[in-house]
Amino acid sequence: MANESVDDSIFKILIATDNHLGYGETKPNIAHDSFRAFEEILQLAVKNEVDMVLLGGDLFHESQPSSYSLQRCTELLKRYCLGDRPVAIEFLSDQSEHFGHLKNPIVNYEDPDLNICLPIFSIHGNHDSPGGSELISALDILSSAGLINYFGRWNDLSKIEIKPILLRKGDTKIAIYGLSHIPDQRLVRLFQEKKVKMPRVDDDDDWFNILVLHQNRANRGIKNFIPYDIIPEFINLVIWGHEHDCNIEPKQCTQNGPYISQPGSSVATSLSEGESGEKHVGLLKVYKDTFKIIALPLKSVRPFIFDDIVLCKPGTDEYDLDAPKEQAINDVKAKVEEMMQKATIKQEDNNTPFKPLIRLSVKYYTEPQIFNGIRLGHQYEDRVANPGDMFKFSNYTPKERRKKTDGVYPVGDTEFTDIDDWATSVEDVVEKYFENYERSTKMKVLSVKLMTKAVSRFVELRDYGSLSVAFGTQTKKTVQLLEDKNADCDDVDTVLDLIKQERIRDEDKEVIELAKEFEKDRTAPTPIDEDEIHISDDDDDVEVLGASVTKPARGRGSRGGKTATKAPRKPRGRGTKTK
Amino acid sequence: MANESVDDSIFKILIATDNHLGYGETKPNIAHDSFRAFEEILQLAVKNEVDMVLLGGDLFHESQPSSYSLQRCTELLKRYCLGDRPVAIEFLSDQSEHFGHLKNPIVNYEDPDLNICLPIFSIHGNHDSPGGSELISALDILSSAGLINYFGRWNDLSKIEIKPILLRKGDTKIAIYGLSHIPDQRLVRLFQEKKVKMPRVDDDDDWFNILVLHQNRANRGIKNFIPYDIIPEFINLVIWGHEHDCNIEPKQCTQNGPYISQPGSSVATSLSEGESGEKHVGLLKVYKDTFKIIALPLKSVRPFIFDDIVLCKPGTDEYDLDAPKEQAINDVKAKVEEMMQKATIKQEDNNTPFKPLIRLSVKYYTEPQIFNGIRLGHQYEDRVANPGDMFKFSNYTPKERRKKTDGVYPVGDTEFTDIDDWATSVEDVVEKYFENYERSTKMKVLSVKLMTKAVSRFVELRDYGSLSVAFGTQTKKTVQLLEDKNADCDDVDTVLDLIKQERIRDEDKEVIELAKEFEKDRTAPTPIDEDEIHISDDDDDVEVLGASVTKPARGRGSRGGKTATKAPRKPRGRGTKTK
Repeated sequence: MANESVDDSIFKILIATDNHLGYGETKPNIAHDSFRAFEEILQLAVKNEVDMVLLGGDLFHESQPSSYSLQRCTELLKRYCLGDRPVAIEFLSDQSEHFGHLKNPIVNYEDPDLNICLPIFSIHGNHDSPGGSELISALDILSSAGLINYFGRWNDLSKIEIKPILLRKGDTKIAIYGLSHIPDQRLVRLFQEKKVKMPRVDDDDDWFNILVLHQNRANRGIKNFIPYDIIPEFINLVIWGHEHDCNIEPKQCTQNGPYISQPGSSVATSLSEGESGEKHVGLLKVYKDTFKIIALPLKSVRPFIFDDIVLCKPGTDEYDLDAPKEQAINDVKAKVEEMMQKATIKQEDNNTPFKPLIRLSVKYYTEPQIFNGIRLGHQYEDRVANPGDMFKFSNYTPKERRKKTDGVYPVGDTEFTDIDDWATSVEDVVEKYFENYERSTKMKVLSVKLMTKAVSRFVELRDYGSLSVAFGTQTKKTVQLLEDKNADCDDVDTVLDLIKQERIRDEDKEVIELAKEFEKDRTAPTPIDEDEIHISDDDDDVEVLGASVTKPARGRGSRGGKTATKAPRKPRGRGTKTK
Repeated sequence: MANESVDDSIFKILIATDNHLGYGETKPNIAHDSFRAFEEILQLAVKNEVDMVLLGGDLFHESQPSSYSLQRCTELLKRYCLGDRPVAIEFLSDQSEHFGHLKNPIVNYEDPDLNICLPIFSIHGNHDSPGGSELISALDILSSAGLINYFGRWNDLSKIEIKPILLRKGDTKIAIYGLSHIPDQRLVRLFQEKKVKMPRVDDDDDWFNILVLHQNRANRGIKNFIPYDIIPEFINLVIWGHEHDCNIEPKQCTQNGPYISQPGSSVATSLSEGESGEKHVGLLKVYKDTFKIIALPLKSVRPFIFDDIVLCKPGTDEYDLDAPKEQAINDVKAKVEEMMQKATIKQEDNNTPFKPLIRLSVKYYTEPQIFNGIRLGHQYEDRVANPGDMFKFSNYTPKERRKKTDGVYPVGDTEFTDIDDWATSVEDVVEKYFENYERSTKMKVLSVKLMTKAVSRFVELRDYGSLSVAFGTQTKKTVQLLEDKNADCDDVDTVLDLIKQERIRDEDKEVIELAKEFEKDRTAPTPIDEDEIHISDDDDDVEVLGASVTKPARGRGSRGGKTATKAPRKPRGRGTKTK
């Protein structure tokens, strides 16, 4: 009897994120993958008799899902979430606060017109965030039909106060703080400005506090991810959405900090290594202030094998001087067979018939080793789900190896998810960037402050001449000062340092002068002259305004698509979604 | 008691069509009009305690509605269709036949998990017809959520067998034949080939038979509308969707034919005269084999006043030679005030605050009468919902008046709703066209059969040289024959008649010869030479391949956008939807 009463107090929640319904719906082979995985998740929820499902955002891959995606999703929710099994959880907080965006702001399982047996609670992600003039998310459609409970949404981003959803089952009380996706940089700024409030429930010791959010966890650039120490210590468990690799086992990442569980996506939306691991959802059990998460593997997920191969090095005995391409093809084919074996094991483990996704990163030394990857892929058409993009070539140089950093992205790779946010924070980014750069003592001619102004102007006002002006005026001024000081060729560096110190004192004056230069009538936007870009042939790097960018590689295998540009390179992913 | 029993047998159906949810959702002023009207319809259904709602297609304006449209619609349906009032109608036919496209193919009010109080039955129209590789309509989304009953859908267009939905309330039995939109020409062909079956219910005398369809009713070109005599005589009432003007009062259009009721749209999607009438939905009451339709005016619809004005004629006393433009503006302004008065009356009648739509067709005689309509419109910004497109100019000529025909469109104005359909039936259209043309004895040089082949080839294979080839070979041949027969200038006409008779006998041979010409290697598609187009200055008409098209008018006010082209004019509306 005692046990039965404990059972009645065990909260069972199925946790999942990033289902990306509709991903690849127009592609061959994989069109149904996202729906199949989502159906399996719902089946797992039913089978494990959970009290509710908690989703961490990106239920849909598109903010305006196709009619097909919406129909499939609606049909699945209708089938699995409605039925006669009673819902055992009590809703204690003010429903109109959580569901105020609905005409009928109640939790769906209390709707007298719907027979809900499996309540789903979801925040939105960056993919299904509200859009259009009326700020409607695809989740609003499902929510209006009473199929899900969509919460944790903030339209006013000047300040955020997350009031938790309070639920009780027997003796266990759970407070769920929902934070739907907000551009990371904006959110970090809000945190820094103490404009994010997560009030603890009054009788706080009794509550198990869950935070569900959908943000960058990996460092994707300055202020472009959520550092762990931002999360209040009273939070017991964080369900982290947005990151696609499965790290579902809860871990404490800071001392006394919350446990973090990252379920990962249920469908691979890119052929990257992180997506190739086993996919899981979690069965979260909470009893009073204790919890555990049982990882439930998703068996219906298409096997995805990711690997890399380094081709033979020229000059070594193995290298076939006469037929390097043929040698490469043979080596790659052997590697693919290895991968296919791994795929077969996965297929057998999960008892699934699905052709695998295969992605081999081919690292070559010299161009003669490059072959037509698409043509080779076609040989695997019957065995592989993605014959058209199995191989990715890259030039294998020591430099490339050096550039690899563990999960920490270099600043130049910063990804921005939201153009507005990007524009408002551009000064921050530029400043930080030049600051780092300056520390390495390379900025002797240019002033951080002035270059920041110029870049901001370039970005925000689309004044494409601003960089040229800032560059020109400062160079001219420096040359003038050098001449004034009669600097010798030998001591230019020392004099430059001196000049710099002087100029920093007068920086505000220079800012005003520069502002005047900006406002001068330049009849046409002046592109930066080729001459102003110093290309040093020995190290493959191009200096543009103090920023180091890589020269375009010849032919295929260019390193990450970096190209030398006349204007400063746009951050990658500008205006596009990260995942 | 007797009366009560009769009441229990009176079937009450609210009929409406063409709600076009989402129409103008990005336009100022009118963004919410479609939703407001639809909500009023649902409110009328509830207020009149109808047993069901029957919709005639085009519930949505877009086949992939925006998330906003879907959310608004879902919210309205959830609010008005779910509740405790019991549904009194019995569903007698096989539900899996009507709703076979659903995983759970049952009528929504019999779903044990949903508390439906107002069942909606709907076919799809051309605007919300199924699309994408999975052939999903927006109605499928609503249907999967159990919010509507979507029926009358045919994916296999090689033959159609419409099995009616059989419903009973007390002593009244209704059979509803649903025919969702099919491109008109394809449907007409299916009827002609006897491939459309509408089996009568066995005990047929007892049933009140309703056909609901969404097709062209007005003659929009050969085989591009549904003639009344196609409809089986046993049908008692047709609910005709697609046509936007309200002709809701049931009329018999053929002897012994069915009554036809055309509810019309609930929102004006174009500023045409047909849309300017009062909007209604119908309260259909059926008792055994008798019925009546009570027209219920929609009070929430934005007033729309349509009118035309003919400006002063030059040469008359009224015409102001010194300031024709100022005179035009003054006359138009006076007219607008008249229209605004009408709008005010409508506003007062319906007790609505909505700024009216105003459309004035301005017919001018000479270009000096034309003024900037957009600029004048801005003066009405505070009073009119569509200040940007209040005025439409057209040149008022006697010819224009002659061209006006009552609802019967000239062939040249044929509108095609579907490019596939259009392509398959192009031979029909061309043949019929040339046939009519030939009867008027103008086709002496060209053969109908050969020109048909050439036009078909032009359209279907995009062989842009085919017309030139057909034209050239036939002209050459005719000249040759004329020379052979030593025809004098005076009797060319007679000889041509002779030659034509001879050639018709050998037409099949000529078709084969032409086919050979077509296959000859023409290195580049040969556009028709300017020379081959005879432009006679005196009558503004250009003869291109026997078809009469109007020369482009200079400046504004070109007559309906007709232009002389080197290739035959494309039918208007090709590839676009009609309404």
